[in-house]
Amino acid sequence: MNLLLLMPSDLLGADRALVRDPRQLKHLHEVHRAAQGDWLRIGVSNGLMGRGQLVRLEAEEAELVVTLDQPPPPKLPVTLLLALPRPKMLRRVLQTVASMGVSRLVLLNSQRVEKSFWQTPFLAPEAVQEQLLLGLEQACDTRLPEVQIEPRFKPFVEDRVPALVQDTLGLVAHPGNYPSCPWGLDLNQKITLAIGPEGGWIPYEVTKLQEVGLQPVQLGARILRVETAVAALLARLFSG
Amino acid sequence: MNLLLLMPSDLLGADRALVRDPRQLKHLHEVHRAAQGDWLRIGVSNGLMGRGQLVRLEAEEAELVVTLDQPPPPKLPVTLLLALPRPKMLRRVLQTVASMGVSRLVLLNSQRVEKSFWQTPFLAPEAVQEQLLLGLEQACDTRLPEVQIEPRFKPFVEDRVPALVQDTLGLVAHPGNYPSCPWGLDLNQKITLAIGPEGGWIPYEVTKLQEVGLQPVQLGARILRVETAVAALLARLFSG
Repeated sequence: MNLLLLMPSDLLGADRALVRDPRQLKHLHEVHRAAQGDWLRIGVSNGLMGRGQLVRLEAEEAELVVTLDQPPPPKLPVTLLLALPRPKMLRRVLQTVASMGVSRLVLLNSQRVEKSFWQTPFLAPEAVQEQLLLGLEQACDTRLPEVQIEPRFKPFVEDRVPALVQDTLGLVAHPGNYPSCPWGLDLNQKITLAIGPEGGWIPYEVTKLQEVGLQPVQLGARILRVETAVAALLARLFSG
Repeated sequence: MNLLLLMPSDLLGADRALVRDPRQLKHLHEVHRAAQGDWLRIGVSNGLMGRGQLVRLEAEEAELVVTLDQPPPPKLPVTLLLALPRPKMLRRVLQTVASMGVSRLVLLNSQRVEKSFWQTPFLAPEAVQEQLLLGLEQACDTRLPEVQIEPRFKPFVEDRVPALVQDTLGLVAHPGNYPSCPWGLDLNQKITLAIGPEGGWIPYEVTKLQEVGLQPVQLGARILRVETAVAALLARLFSG
């Protein structure tokens, strides 16, 4: 936790905040070993960042005097269409996506997504939000990515992706004889990027994504785990 | 497992192999649900890659007819000096490092590495090798990175790093008012790259690394987890 992310409801007036989230209090006590008088980097969910001084730290409550005067870092102008990863990977990928600054994430079905993955409790809105907040607290950001869950591939791709892709560079990462993934784009270039499941998209899915404007690109001979591929692709696209 | 990585001792003559590794057999049976006659992508540790056909698959043994005719993908010409991550992260980072193609990894001490991390059984040579093999089997590579364990920061940096850095571009990733990390290098550019622990290098460590030829570079405002930073930095450096 490199930033203590407060909810707007934690703010008491313009310069005071009260932390009551058990996870955050546990972290302050056990990891930060914080004490009264300590300064912490703070932010408000979907708002500004700044610094706060601990004026009271108890087991179930902490009070801070806060100054909020800095904008959060820019988001990446990316809509990421990601085949739903297995539950354990999902949690880490949500953190990765939030910490890298993705604007919008669509968790999508694919032939190679096991049906059981859709039953995981980690897809519940609170569980998703928890991982996203961890990612923001890691990266020092305050703005949550939008997350959308799409358990049906074909209607989503046919009916919704065309509007998403409009005015963006549409890319689908897929091994094969395709152009290399572009690199060194600037933050004005909006991207729609599709990343498949472990085992990859099936050819039908690549064709469908291509039909709605996503161009297949490859990343080289190495096949990366989803989480590694997400970080590597985003870092490459915006390496400029 | 996108590639079944055989040990040279698994080969019986030029075109036969016998798999007896319980982990690999379990994977063939339970994940691949392989059957006699199936073709698999295979490779030999530190050797060639190719294809193999399963001619016999039993609980404790599998026999393949193999053709080994392809070189493994090029390694990244990178020596990565990595502050020892916490044990759980260490295992994943070893996989990431192997799957991204790093040539050499040095696990190094730092002020912010907890002493207990050095006691983990995951640092035993067999445990390290297991994670590296998983990374190679993920990425379809056969060449293990060299791994070196250095529990003393100062003597290693003073006595050994100068020779490592020679004829390479030396970089230390560190947040702050530093030049941006370079990008788009080609595979002829050798790199020595130092990545700190969660919490970062302390200023003394940055100074010491700078004194032996590693130039501090930053990656932007976002602070990434070690595993994500490794993937993002390598993808950025060799994005060309």
